[in-house]
Amino acid sequence: MTHPLLDLAPLSAAHFAAIEDRVARLLDTRQDVVITQGEALLPLEGCIRGAARPGTTALNVITGPYGQTFGDWLRDCGATVVDLAVPFHTAVTAAQVEEAFAAHPEIDFVSLVHAEAATGNTNPVAEIGEVVRAHGALFMLDAVASVAAEPLLPDAWGVDLCVIGAQKAMGGPAGVSAVSVSERAWERIAANPEAPRRSYLSLLDWKQRWIDGGRKALLHAPAQLEMLALEACLERIESEGLDALMARHATAAAATRAGAVALGGGLEPYVYEAGDAAPVATTLRAPRGVDAAELVARSLAADPVLPLVTGGGALAKEMIRVNHYGPDATRGVVHASLAALGAAMGEAGLAVDLEGARRAVTQAWQA
Amino acid sequence: MTHPLLDLAPLSAAHFAAIEDRVARLLDTRQDVVITQGEALLPLEGCIRGAARPGTTALNVITGPYGQTFGDWLRDCGATVVDLAVPFHTAVTAAQVEEAFAAHPEIDFVSLVHAEAATGNTNPVAEIGEVVRAHGALFMLDAVASVAAEPLLPDAWGVDLCVIGAQKAMGGPAGVSAVSVSERAWERIAANPEAPRRSYLSLLDWKQRWIDGGRKALLHAPAQLEMLALEACLERIESEGLDALMARHATAAAATRAGAVALGGGLEPYVYEAGDAAPVATTLRAPRGVDAAELVARSLAADPVLPLVTGGGALAKEMIRVNHYGPDATRGVVHASLAALGAAMGEAGLAVDLEGARRAVTQAWQA
Amino acid sequence: MTHPLLDLAPLSAAHFAAIEDRVARLLDTRQDVVITQGEALLPLEGCIRGAARPGTTALNVITGPYGQTFGDWLRDCGATVVDLAVPFHTAVTAAQVEEAFAAHPEIDFVSLVHAEAATGNTNPVAEIGEVVRAHGALFMLDAVASVAAEPLLPDAWGVDLCVIGAQKAMGGPAGVSAVSVSERAWERIAANPEAPRRSYLSLLDWKQRWIDGGRKALLHAPAQLEMLALEACLERIESEGLDALMARHATAAAATRAGAVALGGGLEPYVYEAGDAAPVATTLRAPRGVDAAELVARSLAADPVLPLVTGGGALAKEMIRVNHYGPDATRGVVHASLAALGAAMGEAGLAVDLEGARRAVTQAWQA
Amino acid sequence: MTHPLLDLAPLSAAHFAAIEDRVARLLDTRQDVVITQGEALLPLEGCIRGAARPGTTALNVITGPYGQTFGDWLRDCGATVVDLAVPFHTAVTAAQVEEAFAAHPEIDFVSLVHAEAATGNTNPVAEIGEVVRAHGALFMLDAVASVAAEPLLPDAWGVDLCVIGAQKAMGGPAGVSAVSVSERAWERIAANPEAPRRSYLSLLDWKQRWIDGGRKALLHAPAQLEMLALEACLERIESEGLDALMARHATAAAATRAGAVALGGGLEPYVYEAGDAAPVATTLRAPRGVDAAELVARSLAADPVLPLVTGGGALAKEMIRVNHYGPDATRGVVHASLAALGAAMGEAGLAVDLEGARRAVTQAWQA
Repeated sequence: MTHPLLDLAPLSAAHFAAIEDRVARLLDTRQDVVITQGEALLPLEGCIRGAARPGTTALNVITGPYGQTFGDWLRDCGATVVDLAVPFHTAVTAAQVEEAFAAHPEIDFVSLVHAEAATGNTNPVAEIGEVVRAHGALFMLDAVASVAAEPLLPDAWGVDLCVIGAQKAMGGPAGVSAVSVSERAWERIAANPEAPRRSYLSLLDWKQRWIDGGRKALLHAPAQLEMLALEACLERIESEGLDALMARHATAAAATRAGAVALGGGLEPYVYEAGDAAPVATTLRAPRGVDAAELVARSLAADPVLPLVTGGGALAKEMIRVNHYGPDATRGVVHASLAALGAAMGEAGLAVDLEGARRAVTQAWQA
Repeated sequence: MTHPLLDLAPLSAAHFAAIEDRVARLLDTRQDVVITQGEALLPLEGCIRGAARPGTTALNVITGPYGQTFGDWLRDCGATVVDLAVPFHTAVTAAQVEEAFAAHPEIDFVSLVHAEAATGNTNPVAEIGEVVRAHGALFMLDAVASVAAEPLLPDAWGVDLCVIGAQKAMGGPAGVSAVSVSERAWERIAANPEAPRRSYLSLLDWKQRWIDGGRKALLHAPAQLEMLALEACLERIESEGLDALMARHATAAAATRAGAVALGGGLEPYVYEAGDAAPVATTLRAPRGVDAAELVARSLAADPVLPLVTGGGALAKEMIRVNHYGPDATRGVVHASLAALGAAMGEAGLAVDLEGARRAVTQAWQA
Repeated sequence: MTHPLLDLAPLSAAHFAAIEDRVARLLDTRQDVVITQGEALLPLEGCIRGAARPGTTALNVITGPYGQTFGDWLRDCGATVVDLAVPFHTAVTAAQVEEAFAAHPEIDFVSLVHAEAATGNTNPVAEIGEVVRAHGALFMLDAVASVAAEPLLPDAWGVDLCVIGAQKAMGGPAGVSAVSVSERAWERIAANPEAPRRSYLSLLDWKQRWIDGGRKALLHAPAQLEMLALEACLERIESEGLDALMARHATAAAATRAGAVALGGGLEPYVYEAGDAAPVATTLRAPRGVDAAELVARSLAADPVLPLVTGGGALAKEMIRVNHYGPDATRGVVHASLAALGAAMGEAGLAVDLEGARRAVTQAWQA
Repeated sequence: MTHPLLDLAPLSAAHFAAIEDRVARLLDTRQDVVITQGEALLPLEGCIRGAARPGTTALNVITGPYGQTFGDWLRDCGATVVDLAVPFHTAVTAAQVEEAFAAHPEIDFVSLVHAEAATGNTNPVAEIGEVVRAHGALFMLDAVASVAAEPLLPDAWGVDLCVIGAQKAMGGPAGVSAVSVSERAWERIAANPEAPRRSYLSLLDWKQRWIDGGRKALLHAPAQLEMLALEACLERIESEGLDALMARHATAAAATRAGAVALGGGLEPYVYEAGDAAPVATTLRAPRGVDAAELVARSLAADPVLPLVTGGGALAKEMIRVNHYGPDATRGVVHASLAALGAAMGEAGLAVDLEGARRAVTQAWQA
């Protein structure tokens, strides 16, 4: 019995390579791009375990929950970790990175998350990249939540390891991910005796057996359907235009922020400066004395498909997150999200200006 | 290059027949079931052009827009048409059908729409079927908007031609449809020299070349993907349980009606009696002096995926339709629809009780 | 429960129109293109029932089984039919068409099948079109088996109604099809009181309600998955290049013909002249005294996915058809088809030159 | 723009858990089943890195190429490895395993591949399991090439870690895989300080955060499409019946072996005893002096979709592998494979009995 997800002709190596090249074009990079056969956590872990070793000093910038994970991995590898933790309501600055290098000139690896969907901020990678490059450290960037939502230029910015996933602004699958790797990153990993080899975690296996072999034979059967979905979303992005897609995300972020401010009732943007706010998600601080989780639950009871969540862990009671990425980066979804939140706040006895919020959103979209 | 929608192994005749049998089980019918390769308008037209001819007297019950179409087709075929038009705010009764037979004992064909998504009413088919059968007329039922949303029993009710589509309560595809055909309907069609033969409109071709041939060879290549989607939705219905699915629709209708009444502001159920209201859609009369189209537009601006539409044609200014079928027959969607409508009414200066509406919906769901 | 064939966002009118435009580019036509929601028999029937009426004199060129069907439809419509039947082992010539016009100057409609998959021939449409146009008749072409396999230029050739399906050389779905309609064809149909209106068979409905309405609202829910598959195959054709795809079909036909001749054993091309042979299928005459059906059955027992069939109806005992379209238009499939046929012939006691057949195929592919 | 592989509603945790339960039913196991988000190499590596550590003594049974990989991983973990290498033309016996325990009573871990697609043998797991259990060692089984092709009963056989993939006999996707884990395996892994934690390689993460948390929250976004394809193939297996599917594979293996013997020309089964031969693939030794790779290349030139490959690495010149799993475990594919091989051998000047091979295959299928 025929089924559209079964019995497809196998994905050829040439087709796989063509999808890699399409990712490279999206990132405007001439570095090697490896499509990794798992969620983006796989290449992130592969990068750190590949590059870090005893003797490494790593600057780990923490602007959200993933920074914690990166630090754990770095310590697992025996690296000395300099944590640069930044309050979640802001971005890290190039100056802070510069200071870290001044205090620890031995830093030879920097890990950074570009945009944080979880906390709603985004970091100035271009400027930070300049600092990192000046000090000769290897620069790893987690761009899962920024790719296709805001400019991402690993070559121009000196990013050595740039990891992306398709599940946010790209509107694609989560089951495969990708990483671009600079020549010097390959050298660093190859020189690391502790780097994973003959392992599902190994980037080096892909370099030596796939890339250096002329991309003729895959290391193992790929996640074919996820690959085809990745190709389909790349095609859709090319068809909409990357600039148009990024503009749509920027507008959704501006509209959500403006609408939340106009709504009033004590709701406030979690990230102080609009310039530090991520284009994929807007985080809001719940009004004093009001439980964020309850507001979100009430909103979702009314419309369960709205992209509203609370902050994770300790932030659950105070942070409301409005996602607006991929197909949700539209005026209608932003309107509906704020209307639902506003209604929930009204029910909780807060005075809200629903009409003002609507006007602010509309205006942002017309700007 | 492999693509999940291309290069599937052809759908075999046996697989096609198995899907037909699965439709027959859904309808609890022992009649022949033909899956027609087009939208449900195709078998509806095929039934009427197959059964009607000069000399036919047809009782055409009009409870919504499709009745008009059926009447046109019947007249095209040279039939004498007795139109029994019923105001859209109610259902037809078996007594009215009985009266029509009394006035026109020569009636030998009856066409009826079971539930009307467009006008929000549903008709008592079991009772009407008893009348039709007593008079020996052929009975055609358009059950596109009732199948899987409320009981539908063509054999028990004496329906000779029962047409369904999967695109409403079944949550399936619109590109193929199905019709169950009684033995006497086949006889009537076969005896009609004007019935389509060797034609895309012909049911008789399927009888003679497909069914009578033992369902060994299809008449032409089928719409394979639509067939697979139909099979997938049948499977999903079996998994949820048809009773559970129908209950979900009944509750959605009751909740929408109750919520709209509680909302107030002059909004009223279009269909007077709850018992006459369709489980797939609730129609509402806009408050006096307020444009239904404007309320719907405002609501959709806030949340464009809500299943809200205006009435068709002349009803556009006065009728609001809340669809709640398939994946939309949920508490969350009903809540969101009424909240959006209520907000739009508030903006239009009407006094609405949003909290009351919410309570009414919640209560209906708990009943 | 999510399923890739269910719960897709509805296909928008704009998306539908964009697919129509892509079909128009494939046909290099500036005529209106309507994508019809059924197998290609639907628009073929729609064209004939739309254009023919009592008073029409139709020249019906019969080069295969579909000509018979077209003649039936034309007579159903009350047209006077001039049948021009051509032996299946050849093509019709423009001179024969010219003669028909000379004998019946009142001919105002011509129906022709471009390539016949069933009989393996193809007709010189460009030259015939010139004759038809000189006489001012309306020209309908069934191009289902030629589109994407050989040049098809409705505008340049003066074709008024050009019907295609995607299931052969295009490698796409069978559940939707398309027709390009010239301005004068629209006028003829609109002037025909018998043309289907308010009917699944009606092209005019699409003209008046879809095209003339600016392609804003579809007439009914489309066969969405088939539409998406059509789009996917158009994309794949653009990616391979239409010229490359046509060349692949031409080579497959030449190789099959040459290989069959080299195989010997009494096997002969059914179509006498290579120039009259269709690029999608090569028909062969079974050796004298040998049952074609048995040879095909033996071949398929060994390899059931080979694209081998017997001729239809009366031809079943003498004609073997090797299909080589879409994904089967490859050297490997041609090789395998001839090897299997040759083996079956060997088992039947015929002397065959398997190695010669292989060389001939290889050589054709290198030419 | 809608696309069937994009914008699906996210796979819920409950749906994910239901697929795990369906895998558990396939394996008739009451152990925990974890569906791992990558090719089967991921859980295989996860098992070994989870269970092995300095101090471990591992018996590594090598009956094909994967044994080498397992040994590498075990040594990476600091384990002492006792390699039990068995010639590829046979299976390992329980007695050999017993001897290894006698020589190394400290063995506390055993790794075994059930069936080897690459070398065409299969091992008597039930008997070996008895030995392993008697000695109290942990027993890991790679059942990727046996699941659904022959009986696989981890609970009855005392397998502690049973890894499967769907890409062979199951006819499903390769991008996700699964492992059943016994209580004592969990204990061993949890007690291993070197076991991967907070890692893509970690099984323990799934135990602690997914299973022990009541399977409420996934660790990360899953490979949704691969999961749906896995579900679809499980459904298809249930529909065909597991016993019927296994019987189909057994017959395909018997038929291929018998056909190859009947073909003659010096071709011989690579695995000496039929009882040691795997049901998913039959390996053959090329006739003396004939290059296996050339025979395979000639065969594929004629029919590129045949499931023929050469042996890997050093075996490329002498081993021909006929795969017959999933949709290829049919009489037609076996016939075609042997016919193509026979034709290639004939061209190479070997005397082959094509008709004898055909009879042998047919007979095996009728047995």
